[in-house]
Amino acid sequence: RDRERQGMAKNTNMRWRLPLVCLLWELAMIVLFGVFVRFGAEADAHWEEEKREMNLTSDMENDFYFRYPSFQDVHVMIFVGFGFLMTFLKRYGFGAVGFNFLLAAFGIQWALLMQGWFHSFKDGKIFIGVENLINADFCVGSVCIAFGAILGKTSPIQLLVMTLFQVTLFSVNEYILLNLLHVKDAGGSMTIHTFGAYFGLTVTRILYRPNLEQSKDKQGSVYHSDLFAMIGTLYLWMYWPSFNSAISDHGDAQHRSAINTYCSLAACVLTTMAFSSMLQKKGKLDMVHIQNATLAGGVAVGTSAEMMLTPYGSLIVGSISGIVSTLGYVYFTPFLESRLHIQDTCGIHNLHAMPGLIGGIVGAITAAAATEDVYGKEGFIKAFDFTGVYQTRTPSIQGGFQAAGIVVSLLMAFAGGAIVGGILKLPIWGDAAAENCFEDGVYWEVPEDEESDVYHMHNPDKPASP
Amino acid sequence: RDRERQGMAKNTNMRWRLPLVCLLWELAMIVLFGVFVRFGAEADAHWEEEKREMNLTSDMENDFYFRYPSFQDVHVMIFVGFGFLMTFLKRYGFGAVGFNFLLAAFGIQWALLMQGWFHSFKDGKIFIGVENLINADFCVGSVCIAFGAILGKTSPIQLLVMTLFQVTLFSVNEYILLNLLHVKDAGGSMTIHTFGAYFGLTVTRILYRPNLEQSKDKQGSVYHSDLFAMIGTLYLWMYWPSFNSAISDHGDAQHRSAINTYCSLAACVLTTMAFSSMLQKKGKLDMVHIQNATLAGGVAVGTSAEMMLTPYGSLIVGSISGIVSTLGYVYFTPFLESRLHIQDTCGIHNLHAMPGLIGGIVGAITAAAATEDVYGKEGFIKAFDFTGVYQTRTPSIQGGFQAAGIVVSLLMAFAGGAIVGGILKLPIWGDAAAENCFEDGVYWEVPEDEESDVYHMHNPDKPASP
Amino acid sequence: RDRERQGMAKNTNMRWRLPLVCLLWELAMIVLFGVFVRFGAEADAHWEEEKREMNLTSDMENDFYFRYPSFQDVHVMIFVGFGFLMTFLKRYGFGAVGFNFLLAAFGIQWALLMQGWFHSFKDGKIFIGVENLINADFCVGSVCIAFGAILGKTSPIQLLVMTLFQVTLFSVNEYILLNLLHVKDAGGSMTIHTFGAYFGLTVTRILYRPNLEQSKDKQGSVYHSDLFAMIGTLYLWMYWPSFNSAISDHGDAQHRSAINTYCSLAACVLTTMAFSSMLQKKGKLDMVHIQNATLAGGVAVGTSAEMMLTPYGSLIVGSISGIVSTLGYVYFTPFLESRLHIQDTCGIHNLHAMPGLIGGIVGAITAAAATEDVYGKEGFIKAFDFTGVYQTRTPSIQGGFQAAGIVVSLLMAFAGGAIVGGILKLPIWGDAAAENCFEDGVYWEVPEDEESDVYHMHNPDKPASP
Repeated sequence: RDRERQGMAKNTNMRWRLPLVCLLWELAMIVLFGVFVRFGAEADAHWEEEKREMNLTSDMENDFYFRYPSFQDVHVMIFVGFGFLMTFLKRYGFGAVGFNFLLAAFGIQWALLMQGWFHSFKDGKIFIGVENLINADFCVGSVCIAFGAILGKTSPIQLLVMTLFQVTLFSVNEYILLNLLHVKDAGGSMTIHTFGAYFGLTVTRILYRPNLEQSKDKQGSVYHSDLFAMIGTLYLWMYWPSFNSAISDHGDAQHRSAINTYCSLAACVLTTMAFSSMLQKKGKLDMVHIQNATLAGGVAVGTSAEMMLTPYGSLIVGSISGIVSTLGYVYFTPFLESRLHIQDTCGIHNLHAMPGLIGGIVGAITAAAATEDVYGKEGFIKAFDFTGVYQTRTPSIQGGFQAAGIVVSLLMAFAGGAIVGGILKLPIWGDAAAENCFEDGVYWEVPEDEESDVYHMHNPDKPASP
Repeated sequence: RDRERQGMAKNTNMRWRLPLVCLLWELAMIVLFGVFVRFGAEADAHWEEEKREMNLTSDMENDFYFRYPSFQDVHVMIFVGFGFLMTFLKRYGFGAVGFNFLLAAFGIQWALLMQGWFHSFKDGKIFIGVENLINADFCVGSVCIAFGAILGKTSPIQLLVMTLFQVTLFSVNEYILLNLLHVKDAGGSMTIHTFGAYFGLTVTRILYRPNLEQSKDKQGSVYHSDLFAMIGTLYLWMYWPSFNSAISDHGDAQHRSAINTYCSLAACVLTTMAFSSMLQKKGKLDMVHIQNATLAGGVAVGTSAEMMLTPYGSLIVGSISGIVSTLGYVYFTPFLESRLHIQDTCGIHNLHAMPGLIGGIVGAITAAAATEDVYGKEGFIKAFDFTGVYQTRTPSIQGGFQAAGIVVSLLMAFAGGAIVGGILKLPIWGDAAAENCFEDGVYWEVPEDEESDVYHMHNPDKPASP
Repeated sequence: RDRERQGMAKNTNMRWRLPLVCLLWELAMIVLFGVFVRFGAEADAHWEEEKREMNLTSDMENDFYFRYPSFQDVHVMIFVGFGFLMTFLKRYGFGAVGFNFLLAAFGIQWALLMQGWFHSFKDGKIFIGVENLINADFCVGSVCIAFGAILGKTSPIQLLVMTLFQVTLFSVNEYILLNLLHVKDAGGSMTIHTFGAYFGLTVTRILYRPNLEQSKDKQGSVYHSDLFAMIGTLYLWMYWPSFNSAISDHGDAQHRSAINTYCSLAACVLTTMAFSSMLQKKGKLDMVHIQNATLAGGVAVGTSAEMMLTPYGSLIVGSISGIVSTLGYVYFTPFLESRLHIQDTCGIHNLHAMPGLIGGIVGAITAAAATEDVYGKEGFIKAFDFTGVYQTRTPSIQGGFQAAGIVVSLLMAFAGGAIVGGILKLPIWGDAAAENCFEDGVYWEVPEDEESDVYHMHNPDKPASP
């Protein structure tokens, strides 16, 4: 009875609020795109003239062919990778895949604008090409990460509001790092993972739910939901070399990024399995670790993959990050929840926050250790873009700026997360009561089937199946 | 008892019929390929000589590298995309994925021949390359669409017969549009979606089953089947930019198609979510809409994506198509079934027919509105291929021909669907009784498990698991 | 009671053994990579200088752009393709996907070294690029195949030990074939499939378990596990054109390989469906055949796909291999088990061994039948690499060497499999008792859910869910 009253106190009906937000924002996108967004030269029908001016002899020189395969891999990571990774919960598969779909679809539009204003703005217009699509996907990746922390505890409107603000803050932070600090971060250890994870952790801290144990029974997985999650894991794992190389310089840099990431991820699987088994009394492997910690190796070389990290360097970084991430799941997540009141549904602290920090640090060290001998004279300048006002930068100074990038990302994440968390705490967004968290039935029409028993116990008023 | 008699009246045993059809047709394919199909110049071992003659300096100029990544994405859409999209039914997952696999594998062979005769025929031979593979996949895509309307109600032989005829008619229609009317339709809004959908709807109208409510209990989904369907949805959604750009001109056209499609699809997700929530009393999202209507944005820019539709134009088209498609699921599908006796299992009218029409119309308008100013002098001629006998065509005339293409596709679909529907109505193809529709056990060996209870009730004679 | 005693006799606790093996081996990888592995010229920061020396005008000439899309497809085949193909067992999904993940992640590191020493060794260093990554994935593919034979019956440590030895033997066999016999085998019919399958079959013969029928109830599938397996099947099927073309020569050879494989696979689906239906009393299709035999067409053109096999030749090969493979599942697998004591969980004899032999033979014939007329003078030399010491080879001699390659692969597989099987039989690796085979609960923490009833019957001491 008490539970029922509590449940009724929360109005989770989205009927007018969600459509209103979606439609107004889409309308805003249309207007802003109409005013600002145009095709870049390589996607414009004037390309034939451009080609002549640029003295290009082949259509192959269009950036499309350098980046489109990687773009599609990144696209899969954002929508299938993150979406399915979060389906591990027994009764939140629709929310995991569906809300991820919603927020990412909105986020990429807003990111095209925000990042466009900062990076592709000329004569009052934003000119876009395939690289902008990749960057928009990247930006949204940081929102998907933050979503992992609050998975199951927020309404779709809250997610859209968070996306709006996080994409904005991401773009500002990215601008500071890449343009003001002149930091290298092609795979986004700092801009995507560190920022996204600490932002999400701050938000979930502020949205702390003291009674969350009321939905404890739904926070676990079932056999098949763990297999669905492995689809997400594997696509993230397999395509991560594309993620880290997608926006690197043409040629050797893209090639090198892919190799480094491949190596790091392979090593990470072995150390994750080792520690997963070691930390369980009977030596059994834990699906939570395999689904998540195996990916830490991709995060941890995000900054340095395009540098001369070397294959063995990648193995070392991957090995360490797998260990750190697995230890995090066993020891750190419970600590965060009980002591710091950070309820981190997917354990993004272990998969993105700590490996992201490692990635930033490894990047700073790798940059500081760079020499003309290792990179070649031209390669050295090209790798770090030491041209124009930056032509006097030395590796050690670059290393310092890289380190500064980590700090800035952290500060932006904490400050931004605190503000956005505060906004999301307003009682108007329609989030569910603690006892109804991790339950698709709140926001989705769920088919009746034998597996929904868990649900029926709590929701006697469930509508008949369609 | 009555049910049993009815069930026995239908002989669904495929033992000799299906093997006969498969083997004879495969034999025919081998003979016809032997007589007609040869490697095109870019796949032939004489390529080194060809390169010299064509004055090409790099292997990169081989069309393989311009199109192969897109081809693989399209391939995934046909086999995983369409296959899994249709697994939403609780007891028809094997049929959805398996029959889609069967008909597509046959269809691509037959399409290579049919399209080859029309488009790649020279000196008595068909010369094929990667573009032919893409076109064969496209052609089969229209069959997969039609399959969506009759899903669960037909035997595999019926599907193969339908594929044979539909591929033939598709190729004729495509020839009329592309060669006779000189219409642009790179993403197939007209040739693939409009034609495929209205063809399938006509077929299912003719195969109308008045007693289909006898299998009503199996027409719904279960929790995990909806997640499997989301795999199909997401792969279609993510790879649609590749679909619409796969056979566009090298360079800017491919680049532009991908961007337009990306934008349209993103917008479509938001309006679909908005209307799905708005149209349900409690504001809950409906998986049927999310699985399907989110894709309408890809269909609706199929014709215009390679034109200078512009990103904001794409957002507008995507937004509208998501709304139209979702409204279709809620209001139009029940109307079609009750009034017009069109039983459309997957709702292809909402996902392909209406958005396909929108796509054709948007294409006609975009073509009619084209100017040399927007496209550049060369770009204008290249985009619409205004060369040779077509060099005097103006945009508005092109717009008129585009519109004519829609009408031709519709007429071909209705006429072809009526004839093929008639053929499929013959009582020799082994389709199941109404009460056994949407049930894998009719044509598949189904493992015994706790989920098969639904099935047991109706089929006491189910064989023991293997 | 008897069962319990038996069960207790086997110590399956991995707590120290698995971590020890994983960590020590990863450490070894780091040390060996540190000593030997360096970036190849196309991935090194000196690439700008290299480009000038090689007189390359575009970054597009970097091998990365010729092979990366194919690499990613192959990567998906290894991790998602093989991993999910094996999830068909009702209670071994974690083991299928997870152990495949583990062994492949280790295997690719070790393969980079082994293959590197044989093929990319210069001045004491191994120089790697994207082609090495593909070859490492290929090598591991042969281990995934062998895993299919012993699926469900071995501990993760046994799998790692097998991987260590099999990768080593694979590399030796590959060196003999490609370098000493100068054999062509781009898609690996001999090196990957024949070798991998007969190696695995020999291992499983030696690990014969007379009491395996004690876990008969777990050797089947359930409805949803068959759908998960279809994800694996389809990704293998769709991406197989990339597999067979991934390391072919740039240009026409890659193009041709993809077309031949596409054709062969399409034909294979039809004959598989035909025979699956024909061989069942009621004409029902069997998911086991659809999941596996449809892929035989890819295996069977592995050697010849890059040759001028022609599209109709591919259809013939694909058709035959589908028939042989399906017949194998119905008649041969039971025979192997009852008479030869070869317990082949996934039926790799039907999917890889026999089609691999067909592939080797077809390759030998196609090579022997090659003429300058068909290939062109230059094409002929390029296709078979008849340069240097091999410039006097004739097609028929090449055909003989191709045939010799099959024999060598078989001998290596039998001898290697026997030795490795003997090692794996040692009672120290922690494999489960016969009654606990095909059961994830032995090595994995398995969530409690309604589907785990099968499991509870045998394991009253199952730990509470996490």
